[in-house]
Amino acid sequence: MLSFGSRHLHPALGTMVERAALLGGLDGFSNVAAEEAVGRRAGGTMPHALMICFGRGEQEAAWRAFDEAVPDETPRVALVDTYSDEVDEALRATEAVDDLTGVRLDTTGSRRGDFRHIAREVRWTLDAHGHEDVDIFVSGGLGPRELRALRDVADGFGVGSYVSNADPLDFALDIVEVDGEPAAKRGKLTGRKAVYRTADGGHHIGLADRNAPTDAVELLEPLVRDGEVVRAFDFESAIERAAADAAEVGFGDEQ
Amino acid sequence: MLSFGSRHLHPALGTMVERAALLGGLDGFSNVAAEEAVGRRAGGTMPHALMICFGRGEQEAAWRAFDEAVPDETPRVALVDTYSDEVDEALRATEAVDDLTGVRLDTTGSRRGDFRHIAREVRWTLDAHGHEDVDIFVSGGLGPRELRALRDVADGFGVGSYVSNADPLDFALDIVEVDGEPAAKRGKLTGRKAVYRTADGGHHIGLADRNAPTDAVELLEPLVRDGEVVRAFDFESAIERAAADAAEVGFGDEQ
Amino acid sequence: MLSFGSRHLHPALGTMVERAALLGGLDGFSNVAAEEAVGRRAGGTMPHALMICFGRGEQEAAWRAFDEAVPDETPRVALVDTYSDEVDEALRATEAVDDLTGVRLDTTGSRRGDFRHIAREVRWTLDAHGHEDVDIFVSGGLGPRELRALRDVADGFGVGSYVSNADPLDFALDIVEVDGEPAAKRGKLTGRKAVYRTADGGHHIGLADRNAPTDAVELLEPLVRDGEVVRAFDFESAIERAAADAAEVGFGDEQ
Amino acid sequence: MLSFGSRHLHPALGTMVERAALLGGLDGFSNVAAEEAVGRRAGGTMPHALMICFGRGEQEAAWRAFDEAVPDETPRVALVDTYSDEVDEALRATEAVDDLTGVRLDTTGSRRGDFRHIAREVRWTLDAHGHEDVDIFVSGGLGPRELRALRDVADGFGVGSYVSNADPLDFALDIVEVDGEPAAKRGKLTGRKAVYRTADGGHHIGLADRNAPTDAVELLEPLVRDGEVVRAFDFESAIERAAADAAEVGFGDEQ
Amino acid sequence: MLSFGSRHLHPALGTMVERAALLGGLDGFSNVAAEEAVGRRAGGTMPHALMICFGRGEQEAAWRAFDEAVPDETPRVALVDTYSDEVDEALRATEAVDDLTGVRLDTTGSRRGDFRHIAREVRWTLDAHGHEDVDIFVSGGLGPRELRALRDVADGFGVGSYVSNADPLDFALDIVEVDGEPAAKRGKLTGRKAVYRTADGGHHIGLADRNAPTDAVELLEPLVRDGEVVRAFDFESAIERAAADAAEVGFGDEQ
Amino acid sequence: MLSFGSRHLHPALGTMVERAALLGGLDGFSNVAAEEAVGRRAGGTMPHALMICFGRGEQEAAWRAFDEAVPDETPRVALVDTYSDEVDEALRATEAVDDLTGVRLDTTGSRRGDFRHIAREVRWTLDAHGHEDVDIFVSGGLGPRELRALRDVADGFGVGSYVSNADPLDFALDIVEVDGEPAAKRGKLTGRKAVYRTADGGHHIGLADRNAPTDAVELLEPLVRDGEVVRAFDFESAIERAAADAAEVGFGDEQ
Repeated sequence: MLSFGSRHLHPALGTMVERAALLGGLDGFSNVAAEEAVGRRAGGTMPHALMICFGRGEQEAAWRAFDEAVPDETPRVALVDTYSDEVDEALRATEAVDDLTGVRLDTTGSRRGDFRHIAREVRWTLDAHGHEDVDIFVSGGLGPRELRALRDVADGFGVGSYVSNADPLDFALDIVEVDGEPAAKRGKLTGRKAVYRTADGGHHIGLADRNAPTDAVELLEPLVRDGEVVRAFDFESAIERAAADAAEVGFGDEQ
Repeated sequence: MLSFGSRHLHPALGTMVERAALLGGLDGFSNVAAEEAVGRRAGGTMPHALMICFGRGEQEAAWRAFDEAVPDETPRVALVDTYSDEVDEALRATEAVDDLTGVRLDTTGSRRGDFRHIAREVRWTLDAHGHEDVDIFVSGGLGPRELRALRDVADGFGVGSYVSNADPLDFALDIVEVDGEPAAKRGKLTGRKAVYRTADGGHHIGLADRNAPTDAVELLEPLVRDGEVVRAFDFESAIERAAADAAEVGFGDEQ
Repeated sequence: MLSFGSRHLHPALGTMVERAALLGGLDGFSNVAAEEAVGRRAGGTMPHALMICFGRGEQEAAWRAFDEAVPDETPRVALVDTYSDEVDEALRATEAVDDLTGVRLDTTGSRRGDFRHIAREVRWTLDAHGHEDVDIFVSGGLGPRELRALRDVADGFGVGSYVSNADPLDFALDIVEVDGEPAAKRGKLTGRKAVYRTADGGHHIGLADRNAPTDAVELLEPLVRDGEVVRAFDFESAIERAAADAAEVGFGDEQ
Repeated sequence: MLSFGSRHLHPALGTMVERAALLGGLDGFSNVAAEEAVGRRAGGTMPHALMICFGRGEQEAAWRAFDEAVPDETPRVALVDTYSDEVDEALRATEAVDDLTGVRLDTTGSRRGDFRHIAREVRWTLDAHGHEDVDIFVSGGLGPRELRALRDVADGFGVGSYVSNADPLDFALDIVEVDGEPAAKRGKLTGRKAVYRTADGGHHIGLADRNAPTDAVELLEPLVRDGEVVRAFDFESAIERAAADAAEVGFGDEQ
Repeated sequence: MLSFGSRHLHPALGTMVERAALLGGLDGFSNVAAEEAVGRRAGGTMPHALMICFGRGEQEAAWRAFDEAVPDETPRVALVDTYSDEVDEALRATEAVDDLTGVRLDTTGSRRGDFRHIAREVRWTLDAHGHEDVDIFVSGGLGPRELRALRDVADGFGVGSYVSNADPLDFALDIVEVDGEPAAKRGKLTGRKAVYRTADGGHHIGLADRNAPTDAVELLEPLVRDGEVVRAFDFESAIERAAADAAEVGFGDEQ
Repeated sequence: MLSFGSRHLHPALGTMVERAALLGGLDGFSNVAAEEAVGRRAGGTMPHALMICFGRGEQEAAWRAFDEAVPDETPRVALVDTYSDEVDEALRATEAVDDLTGVRLDTTGSRRGDFRHIAREVRWTLDAHGHEDVDIFVSGGLGPRELRALRDVADGFGVGSYVSNADPLDFALDIVEVDGEPAAKRGKLTGRKAVYRTADGGHHIGLADRNAPTDAVELLEPLVRDGEVVRAFDFESAIERAAADAAEVGFGDEQ
């Protein structure tokens, strides 16, 4: 699963979103400007613009040009929804490019009556012609519901605005202690808190100076104290920790 | 608007449905077996079977074969949704057939994300290439709601199961008089009735031996009495009468 | 359960509907014109017309006339909703006809506030007067939901338009192979298929030239080949097969 | 419209409810114990108990007994839903009682599929037999919605629990002034108020020591001051005032 | 749980409602006029009127006045929602009154955004200041749903209109037997019935002269016969029996 | 109406959001970092943090400290929802600060049962004590619906996440022309377009080389051509233009 949504955002945030997408569990990203910051190579497939520049009826020429231009290690994924039907262009792409890695379906809304059926029909047709090894990559307006519906007929996904335009989490910094004494405005619980992961994968919040629940792990650790960074971590281990935490609390289990 | 639904029915009823469709206001029908009974010529366009017999990529050959085979007076309407996108095939059909009358869009469900947009895009593209005189004919699962939504972007319609599979009108013959005395089971109004068209386009039902409402026209006329047909009428005048009655009561006014 | 809906249909289809009703699992039918075709005797009870011809207050005379006129083997089922309340007429029918088989409730809509309560009250009243052996037969607008709601208070059912006016199953004949090569228009899966009953009571569709799933039974058998009937079957064994298939796939299990 | 709901209540409140029903606009009441308090005669029709004491099939005897027993000035309204259908019993009542005033339909729930249709069918049948002068009186679970639906087919109504079981109006006595100073708990507006009927039929609430709105009439008048009744009124003029106020603010206008 | 709703009712019914509330399972009541009839002492807490008479900012004076005026055995429950926030007044009440029993939250609607959060915040704040022994008592518009939502954060409840304004149970006295013969109007089951508690906690109704179900207990016992009271019982044992019956049939189990 | 939402965003975007808020019609903003970029002074009121630092019961001290610290031209707006009820603190603020400009209600969710009633009660109480000149300023989760509901009881608004977290408008750059020839992928209309404001306040999109509609104004003007800025504009005139355009198309009219 690749992050495709960086282009929807102000460039000042592009790198942050790719970094957040990887932390959140995606496998790759498409914004080349973020490569240095995250220490990984960007990926992706050809755009519709390439197809259009070659023109209607010249899809074979466009796919071959891509095949000739990109490095050997780049997967050959042909975009197959530009001018003709996906089934039609997919078949033609297998004939135009040797060693085709896969095809990408980014079907436009007005032709997307049943996206799952389109992907399944492409799969059926590729198989019927002996192309079981050509993967299907889908993109365009995908969120968790679509991913679940498509995952048995697709081999890869491009996810855009579901990640890049996610609603902000509403949070606030509140004063809950003044000179060691509990304090707070109406509606907020007073006093310094500790947050624990409980044994059943849930969490517990309590006053920091009370006892922790049995078998609970305290989660809060200071990152900055009096302006000094007191705890460093690297990006790759953060990804691993996020995945481990998600697994522990059952995030992403079938709904 | 042509009736396309006869094929959904048992052949024993095919002619009756075409007759009823014409009575109900459609302009034509497609079942050639009904021609003699209704006294009109059937019409229609080419089927997908013709396109498939020529095969993927051979659409031009199929359209030209149709153009060469049918009589001069038959409109040249090319089916343009078989293998490629409707916009793509529509453009190609204008190049393949001189004096093309129109194109038919019968877009399959899995590609019908926004049928109105597809029709509008075909119109826009035909116009952009100077084919303002090529008509757009649409079909496939159309009912009143779809017809209203498409009528400003389409020039003709094929209507199938909305007419041929219409729900039966539930009616029953009840005894309401025995030897001239009012009678009926529970739930039925006793006595012989008269039915009137009132001056405001509504109707009124009352006992036949009471006075009619002012300015009302009695609607019931015996067609058969004691087994003898006592009133004949011809099919074309029946169509006219149905249209006139529909207009009088406001049937089909914008909803 | 008897099929009562044949009268809603064009006579050309009456026999076909009765045949289909029996195939679908009903126990009997009412259209005498279908007797020869299906090789069974039609059944039914008296109509409201009979009651009305005798007139209000003369229900006893009507029931007795029926009792005297029909053959000995015909069940005596009195229609008890014509003029008075169902409970009232049911009690009176037990007094009017010796060896009454049952009563039929076909309660008209405007008096059908709670059909289950009416049937239960008739049952209670018959029992309270020692007529535990008089059956209750219900009819009028019944479908699966009503049958489930009534089956513990009724001994028999008449089902009409739910069977006779059932929506047509939409199906189409598609070209999926041309000269042995897979073919199809957009939206259809190419190639000749086989249909299998899988071990879990589901079904599987795959290309005919691929392997069948483990423990699956192929369902398609040619009935006509090149215009020749190649497989005959008789009606009664077809009914049995339909019932067996329904049982195997769990059709009709409690919902 | 008569109040029938007194029997649903504790006897200690019976008189109060009848009094409230008359104040609220009903034409009469049925609880004889309230006659003295309200200064009017109670009214009503025969109960089902009377019919049942005579027994099934003896409805004519019951109606005649009532006719013979009650004073001349009492309207002859026959209850016609006890054993047989309403249409059937209504016809029979017209034959059993000379100068029948009307019939009452109190159809039980399980037979009340469409009460309006039942009333209309009784009306149609009475008219068809020349009894246009026999009124139809309906009762049983009636509220404003039912009254509106039935008022063109019924001549009188009995209303029970809609009046007698009306939800209490939630009100509270609040301190809003202490020793002349505005006071109140949170959520209440401080200070002594005046309530005005405005010129458009609405109302306005403001501080009592501010100016009244233009053309407004102050509505509050002290009834008790320091334990002394300071304003007397009689019941009949209260009914008139309630009706006049309802008319002024448009209460009961078509909704 | 205390009954607070007596004030919503006509005084003639006040005692009956308190009696019914106790029978239905509440722990106490507030209407002192009912003390003699039910043989128990009324209970309650201070009203808003007391707080308002002392005035804004004088809450401490009001709570202390109550503390000084009431007998030693009366629980000290301070009303803490009159002028300031509940959390604020609760803290102040703990400082104003030694040995405070509890605080009452009767939060007015316009400030009741999330009553459970308010109660939880009061609990948290009292605990954070070492007042774990001060109870929280809640009131105001509470029904079963609110009680379930609040029961883990509140120690006591005041319930008003949910009990006092409960909808009447619709019941009627019907004639089902005349001189030993079954009788009834349409819609009613004829004959004298017996009511049984079945072994599974359900109930069964059958004709009194038929056999009881196995292991069933007959529930009906005559209280009055020919105008004579034939079975006496005392109030406290009635409460116990109601609780035992409720437990037996599972009334009040988590829904 | 002031923009309060900048704090929800990454600092890199703070200035852009304040700029957009002003362009969109708000009257002011609170992020001081944006002052230079937009050429206006930021505004706002005191935060809860100030109140909490002074502590529960010391609200008067906090308001007075603010009054003494800020420049004379700064409006004195007291935050009145921190510890006590809004009505209580509002009254106290009028006594603590001479020449109070207004009070701000930012009521926390758990106390916000009916925000309009709270504001109205504050207004009523201020008026009852002669403070008609003290304004009411509201904030906290406000959007168009809340603004419409509150605008007759509030004098000013703070709007946060409705502006700062607004969903991105989904747009894309598409190739519609290649070397002057119309081109586009499926689903897009080919060719270079012009956008017009029509005389009725709507808009029209058509091919750029066709005639404009009658009385229409073309809206697109190039800002950058071949990398050169070809049209400059200043911020204040952009605000005016946005307001004028909004008025012309009826944006913001009552819904």
